[in-house]
Amino acid sequence: MLVQEKTTQAIAILDELGIDAWLTFVRETSAGGDPVLPLIYGPHSLTWQSALLLSRTGERLDPRQIALNYSPNDVYADGLGHGLYQVLLGYLAGTSYAERLVSAEGIIGALRGRKTPAEVARIRTAVATTLEIYRRAFDFMQPGMSEAQVGAFMHGQMAALAIEETAWDRASCPAVNSGPHSPVGHAGPTDLRLERGHIVHFDFGIRQDDYCSDIQRVVYLLRPGETSAPEPVQRGFDTVLAAVDAAVTAMRPGVTGMEVDAAARRVIVDAGYPEFRYATGHHLGRNAHDGGGVLGPAWERYGDTPFRALEAGHVYTVEPGLAVPGYGYVGLEEDVLVTEEETVYLGAPQRELILR
Amino acid sequence: MLVQEKTTQAIAILDELGIDAWLTFVRETSAGGDPVLPLIYGPHSLTWQSALLLSRTGERLDPRQIALNYSPNDVYADGLGHGLYQVLLGYLAGTSYAERLVSAEGIIGALRGRKTPAEVARIRTAVATTLEIYRRAFDFMQPGMSEAQVGAFMHGQMAALAIEETAWDRASCPAVNSGPHSPVGHAGPTDLRLERGHIVHFDFGIRQDDYCSDIQRVVYLLRPGETSAPEPVQRGFDTVLAAVDAAVTAMRPGVTGMEVDAAARRVIVDAGYPEFRYATGHHLGRNAHDGGGVLGPAWERYGDTPFRALEAGHVYTVEPGLAVPGYGYVGLEEDVLVTEEETVYLGAPQRELILR
Repeated sequence: MLVQEKTTQAIAILDELGIDAWLTFVRETSAGGDPVLPLIYGPHSLTWQSALLLSRTGERLDPRQIALNYSPNDVYADGLGHGLYQVLLGYLAGTSYAERLVSAEGIIGALRGRKTPAEVARIRTAVATTLEIYRRAFDFMQPGMSEAQVGAFMHGQMAALAIEETAWDRASCPAVNSGPHSPVGHAGPTDLRLERGHIVHFDFGIRQDDYCSDIQRVVYLLRPGETSAPEPVQRGFDTVLAAVDAAVTAMRPGVTGMEVDAAARRVIVDAGYPEFRYATGHHLGRNAHDGGGVLGPAWERYGDTPFRALEAGHVYTVEPGLAVPGYGYVGLEEDVLVTEEETVYLGAPQRELILR
Repeated sequence: MLVQEKTTQAIAILDELGIDAWLTFVRETSAGGDPVLPLIYGPHSLTWQSALLLSRTGERLDPRQIALNYSPNDVYADGLGHGLYQVLLGYLAGTSYAERLVSAEGIIGALRGRKTPAEVARIRTAVATTLEIYRRAFDFMQPGMSEAQVGAFMHGQMAALAIEETAWDRASCPAVNSGPHSPVGHAGPTDLRLERGHIVHFDFGIRQDDYCSDIQRVVYLLRPGETSAPEPVQRGFDTVLAAVDAAVTAMRPGVTGMEVDAAARRVIVDAGYPEFRYATGHHLGRNAHDGGGVLGPAWERYGDTPFRALEAGHVYTVEPGLAVPGYGYVGLEEDVLVTEEETVYLGAPQRELILR
């Protein structure tokens, strides 16, 4: 189903890009294989040298261009080993085909980025499972527990739900950060204790049926006598929520990632917080960071990726954040789908600060 | 521990091959990465472009050769994408380093092939778990069950032992073949029923702690009144056992895979059976078919791999087989370690036909 949807999509992309043929050339794919293979061939392995050729029309026997899976820019489009490329050049020696080879980067970027209905359904399921694990963790967590204890509980709930893979390295998935002294970023949960008066920040995702979720949540642990969060915590939360809303409102086909990032970043900065030092969001799909364009500023480390336009079918994370001095880190992360009409949350977003 | 053993080994291999430096150049390895990375870096991922340089001596600042991970022949040594190779060439433009690039095929082949003590220990553990699952399956199996039912039981036992991965595609691992009409090869178990008077043949392996097992076993289902297998079945088993012994006896450092294969093949053919149409064995390690030389005949499809010499530290499968008309397929497969002194079974071999 998924492979059929993706190959149909691939042929339309060839037509759109004016490329006559696309060759995926592989061997012994159990050793790792080409990252595009699960999309156009499925979860099986190929032992001998195998050529998967998709062409724009079924008819053209003499393609003007043959796209190959190499790319200086995109690791997901660079599945052809240099040695196997040499083998292919050997086969083509003495023909004019060697001069017709082009990079399949554009094809693969479009193909990975534009999710088909079957792919969106899988991401929705992964998000739903993630939110269920969060729900259980919020019931379980108590002041006095360590971050690591809460993290281990979440791994236990994954196992109970027969989920084998976290969306990124298990050691830092979930990230659990309690209070102002916990190291935020993709670090693992520590032995720091959850305390009343802490913001507890989570970053967690799973891979389910080959597709990922990536969700951040925040909880405030009420101090004795408190019935709501202190003003600086609530204001931090409201600001991040407003930044999420600004990004999601800005997201539509044709807008660049940089424009979306700027909308979210402006909310944070205008409220008087330092700007976050990462991108507002990234593609989500078979991997938590799924390549392609980012919803990010024009910083050198992002290359040309912030200048790419959003398209219907793209799935992104939206994840602004800020630190509340003395309390901890507030970061929300939602997974959303761009459509022609509107941008859709793929699971219920966090709209209120969770109090425990 | 394992990474430390392997990097120490890698430096010795550089010295042996007279290569000054070996560069593993990667990026965003969560997308797949270079198959050599788990050996020299570990199970972590690298996000930005990263260069792992190993040099023959810590001192040489101007290497005469720089080996890169590309190979027309060996997929495990072809982890450098053609696009990333182009990026590297760009960095080296205007220097003389571009002319010093060579393939790391020899380094990687030696490094993957020669198992360190930590690697051998992991394979032993995977073999022990596999034999335990077999033991349970032999207790469970009954005439009247389907092949698929027995296969599902074995998957259930994997889950009970917290083993997540089969050594090859789950659909055909285990293979369970009952009687003369079951399709042998890497096909999945079917709805064919186990019957008295059938040979039941199994091919099964797991991946545990990143290392694989690959073991074949045979059972004969006694008919009413029988207390031993019929003569043709017993003779088939004895012949395969003798072929295993001949191969293992022939295995020592310096011998070629072709010589080992010939020793096993001769036993089968001399006993009047048609020769098996596959290699007697293959490397076993991080994958069930772990690349490098095969214990195989000089058939075209094996390229130059049968001509490679065995080395101490190599781990191979030994898996001759034959069909017994009217009864089924007899195939044994043992996992063995080549050492300077002798060739060692990595788990108790099957020395007698199992009767049920």
